[in-house]
Amino acid sequence: MVQRNAICLYSEETTSDLRAGIQKMRQNGYDKMVSSLVVSKMDYMTGLYKGGNSFSRSDLILDSKEWSESIIAKINDEFDCDSKNDEIRKNSEKILTRELSFADHVIPYVFTLLKVTSLETTNLVRVVMSKNLIGQILIEIPMVNPHKLVNDLCEERDTGHEDPWCWWNTFRAVADFNCKLSIALELSTEIPSKLEISRWLGEPIGSLIIPSHLFVRGSDNKPMLSRPHELLILSFKETINEVAFMVKCNIEDMNLGLYSNYLRHLLEKNPVTDIMYGSDDVLQDPLQPLYDNLDTNTYEIFETDPVKYMYYQNAIERALIDMIPTKDIQTETAIIMIVGAGRGPLIRSSLNASVKTGRKIKLYAIEKNPHAINTLHALVDELWSDKDIEIIAKDMRNFHPVQKADILVSELIGSFGDNELSPECLDGAQKLLKPSGISIPSKYTSYINPVMSFKIHNLIRLRSHMLSPRDRISTSQNRLEQMYVVYMKNVFHIANPETLFEFSHPNRSDHIDNSRFKTVSFETDIDCVLTGFAGYFDAVLYKDIVLSIHPLSHTRGLWSWFPAYFPISEPIQLKKGDSIVTNFWRCTGQHKVWYEWSISKPIITYIHNQMGTHYAIHL
Amino acid sequence: MVQRNAICLYSEETTSDLRAGIQKMRQNGYDKMVSSLVVSKMDYMTGLYKGGNSFSRSDLILDSKEWSESIIAKINDEFDCDSKNDEIRKNSEKILTRELSFADHVIPYVFTLLKVTSLETTNLVRVVMSKNLIGQILIEIPMVNPHKLVNDLCEERDTGHEDPWCWWNTFRAVADFNCKLSIALELSTEIPSKLEISRWLGEPIGSLIIPSHLFVRGSDNKPMLSRPHELLILSFKETINEVAFMVKCNIEDMNLGLYSNYLRHLLEKNPVTDIMYGSDDVLQDPLQPLYDNLDTNTYEIFETDPVKYMYYQNAIERALIDMIPTKDIQTETAIIMIVGAGRGPLIRSSLNASVKTGRKIKLYAIEKNPHAINTLHALVDELWSDKDIEIIAKDMRNFHPVQKADILVSELIGSFGDNELSPECLDGAQKLLKPSGISIPSKYTSYINPVMSFKIHNLIRLRSHMLSPRDRISTSQNRLEQMYVVYMKNVFHIANPETLFEFSHPNRSDHIDNSRFKTVSFETDIDCVLTGFAGYFDAVLYKDIVLSIHPLSHTRGLWSWFPAYFPISEPIQLKKGDSIVTNFWRCTGQHKVWYEWSISKPIITYIHNQMGTHYAIHL
Repeated sequence: MVQRNAICLYSEETTSDLRAGIQKMRQNGYDKMVSSLVVSKMDYMTGLYKGGNSFSRSDLILDSKEWSESIIAKINDEFDCDSKNDEIRKNSEKILTRELSFADHVIPYVFTLLKVTSLETTNLVRVVMSKNLIGQILIEIPMVNPHKLVNDLCEERDTGHEDPWCWWNTFRAVADFNCKLSIALELSTEIPSKLEISRWLGEPIGSLIIPSHLFVRGSDNKPMLSRPHELLILSFKETINEVAFMVKCNIEDMNLGLYSNYLRHLLEKNPVTDIMYGSDDVLQDPLQPLYDNLDTNTYEIFETDPVKYMYYQNAIERALIDMIPTKDIQTETAIIMIVGAGRGPLIRSSLNASVKTGRKIKLYAIEKNPHAINTLHALVDELWSDKDIEIIAKDMRNFHPVQKADILVSELIGSFGDNELSPECLDGAQKLLKPSGISIPSKYTSYINPVMSFKIHNLIRLRSHMLSPRDRISTSQNRLEQMYVVYMKNVFHIANPETLFEFSHPNRSDHIDNSRFKTVSFETDIDCVLTGFAGYFDAVLYKDIVLSIHPLSHTRGLWSWFPAYFPISEPIQLKKGDSIVTNFWRCTGQHKVWYEWSISKPIITYIHNQMGTHYAIHL
Repeated sequence: MVQRNAICLYSEETTSDLRAGIQKMRQNGYDKMVSSLVVSKMDYMTGLYKGGNSFSRSDLILDSKEWSESIIAKINDEFDCDSKNDEIRKNSEKILTRELSFADHVIPYVFTLLKVTSLETTNLVRVVMSKNLIGQILIEIPMVNPHKLVNDLCEERDTGHEDPWCWWNTFRAVADFNCKLSIALELSTEIPSKLEISRWLGEPIGSLIIPSHLFVRGSDNKPMLSRPHELLILSFKETINEVAFMVKCNIEDMNLGLYSNYLRHLLEKNPVTDIMYGSDDVLQDPLQPLYDNLDTNTYEIFETDPVKYMYYQNAIERALIDMIPTKDIQTETAIIMIVGAGRGPLIRSSLNASVKTGRKIKLYAIEKNPHAINTLHALVDELWSDKDIEIIAKDMRNFHPVQKADILVSELIGSFGDNELSPECLDGAQKLLKPSGISIPSKYTSYINPVMSFKIHNLIRLRSHMLSPRDRISTSQNRLEQMYVVYMKNVFHIANPETLFEFSHPNRSDHIDNSRFKTVSFETDIDCVLTGFAGYFDAVLYKDIVLSIHPLSHTRGLWSWFPAYFPISEPIQLKKGDSIVTNFWRCTGQHKVWYEWSISKPIITYIHNQMGTHYAIHL
């Protein structure tokens, strides 16, 4: 992408002296400028160039470093590759192909800017994508249809009521959602609705275009933007950190330098606040702590979560207080068993809870990972030698103590709640509990909601360095039928989450069945595209002490879990008002557990990950 | 599939003595019988089996050969895997899974029969498909909704107006169009419309079910079917040769043997007439005679076409007559150049035409394939030593004769007209023609129409012995973005063909451009599924002498060309009234020519085979 906080000059007049133009734009605080590379215009009826022998500027004007550091190549948009007139169409294809080739030739890893103002772009897309350019293609789209407020017919088509998002959506669908495409989104005087902005925030916005007429005169007589426009710009910056900015004005504009100055100041005053910045939209494979042993680095990362263990400690405190009345403080001891103790953070929480409440505890720390056991022994010897702690180096399902526990504490929950097999583990461990014993957590619930994110869709498609996005690896593993964990930023949430699966502990049923099946419905409020489902959980540790990554109730400061993501193999176009009906299954086998998912509306998809072929969690 | 002309007995009552039942059915002229393997019924609320210890019959009743030769396993359909009641749903899943496993255990390569009467089958499909049975699954579907004539609500849902085709369509879509699924289609008293029958004829029908109540008493007092029913049955037999038949009646029915007798007689009296039988729906890669040399076997097959060379001969005759008036017969000689002469069939046609019309000809036979040249020389030496024939061992584009031709004859046309690069070849060869010279053919046109064929879709998906249908080969070649040649039988033609690309010869334009782009629209007359486009051509040899494989004007007896087939990567569900808008391009590069195609309505697909990555014809 264009470098962070890059501010570009987008002058609509063609600069005749490019070198002078570059100098001027740099002097005025811009990093790059948008410039056409073509000097001659073509007559689309005859296919002849008007005036001059040169098709374009000579590439000798600048050296290649200057070219790539200074210029974004604007593709002239007078052609019509989708004309019904064959001559115009063929001539358009020819000139466009030539322009793109030249841009590719002149500028290493070129950024090309191509304006689109119509739904009729099938052949245009074909020509653009067939060039197989190395660089990025920015599609210039207005945020609000410029003809929206004008009632009369414009040219051949009345595009007054077309949503420009549809121009973009059609273009990229014909182009197979190619990740080379991003948007140069032009702001208008009118600010769109919150919903429309959310939808843009789920798209690959490469740059915001700020036309000079949006600037108003401030109290200091300098140009500034209205507060709504500022907030709009900052919301894009917060979500898509690497977004660039283009000021659209004439290079002769006397406020040239003031525009860029103002924008830099605005961005510096409002730096990105997200502490997770850097993890945005990065695909992770979900952990399998049951099957695999976690490593030191992973333990360390989790242990530094400032919030999670505070909540556990609070839960244990409350449980101890409820369990041992004040009068019995001297005589009673609560037996706490920590299943999956890792390197001891829950031991710490339990010990703190004991001290704070004055209740006596006997701790068992059960852990299957021999390397973590090593650490636990060291901690006990060095820090807790005076505490009543027993370390059990076993899988919790294979421990058969004489003494049973009052409280079973565990942190076996994954981003999707039960996806690290907490149910299977705790079912096996609940024999450790007294009949009156409790589990912390006592319940966890998963949630899903439909999302649009081509960033994530393409990350998944392009995994494993395949030659083309539609390649699959040569085994039966389909990357689009696996679950991922992703910190989602550049994503449009199509609807709010709905409840999915729930598990309670201890599970006192005669016959325990951890398989699940649920059909969930959502409504679509705006035209968009479904690429998959995000997954979350919340867990009741004890009574009203809840850990949550559900977006509407996210525990503040909790960052141990990023949401889950379930892709669908083919994005589905959605119209406002469409119902989305999805089916999710949790399937349990002898050696593994997996999820399957499918869609029934608005179209029927096949069942993804049948038989856990592509993704499973191993017991 | 079940063996050809297999007639099965489908008794709805469970036969208690299976061995006796098999004996009786064989005595009465049946090959197999449908039988439930399960004896105990389950209470779906409690999950308990009612009566008896055995879940099912013992597999010892018959030996495994008898099992597989005699029995089709009917899966009992009292369960409801899609019940909103969790208990019923889970118990249903359990019993269904067990029945399927048992069938798979008892009968090698088992055929299972499962009745479906609803759209709500998502979880049922999941359970059925997750068994990964080795054999085929026949989905029993009525051809006409039995409740159609009944107005009152039935049970929980008013399915009276649901089209049973939709029950099948939903089931197979959720099952990802798995090729293990086929239909056991039950005939009704009512004969559906011609359009509905055509649609069924495009589906994988494994068996027709003929309920005994359809039989009427004939003049000989024996049961027979009405003529419309006979014709219906025979139309299925003609299209899907391997379709089996099931007579649905009680095993105690006194006409048992008469039903099977009647059917056998009907089928024997009306054998399959299609001479292409055996090539049905078999995928072929299109030939590339320009790039590859054809082999002896291929030449031989083509030369035996009884019709094609007759047409060429007629065309040459007419051209000669028009070219040389009777008065000039003695003085004039027509120069005929055959470009791509192969092993000489067009030489033969030309010589015959000369004899028949009395016009003198001088022949040039131009051929690049050195092995064919070998044959030509032999033929000239042995058969045509007295004729004025010159053999030119060159690519036609590299031949520079002193004498120019009056007639250029070629047979470079592929199933899709220009797909063997006839335009490129003839453009290069037209310098051989006198200004007044003509080409035979003078023009060829391609056509396309949208089709539904899951047989073909699955053949393509399963190419190259991939592990699962959604696998792709590990290079960039997507099998669903290639053109095939297929003799289409088990196919539903959604709409009539429309014109696509046209080429005329000789092409006297200043600037020859063989690239093409066309957008074509079709209307959908009935709910169905689009899997791809069939392609055809017709070629004007001379004036009104036309060779055609366009289905509405197919030259009688012409079998040299099977239609072309352009798949789409994801089948598209269509509703009656939907427009299908498709875009086709013929793209010309320096070393190759290729087609690209995409769909704009009812949904947007990406452009298939962009840049000819997956399929191209090499120059």
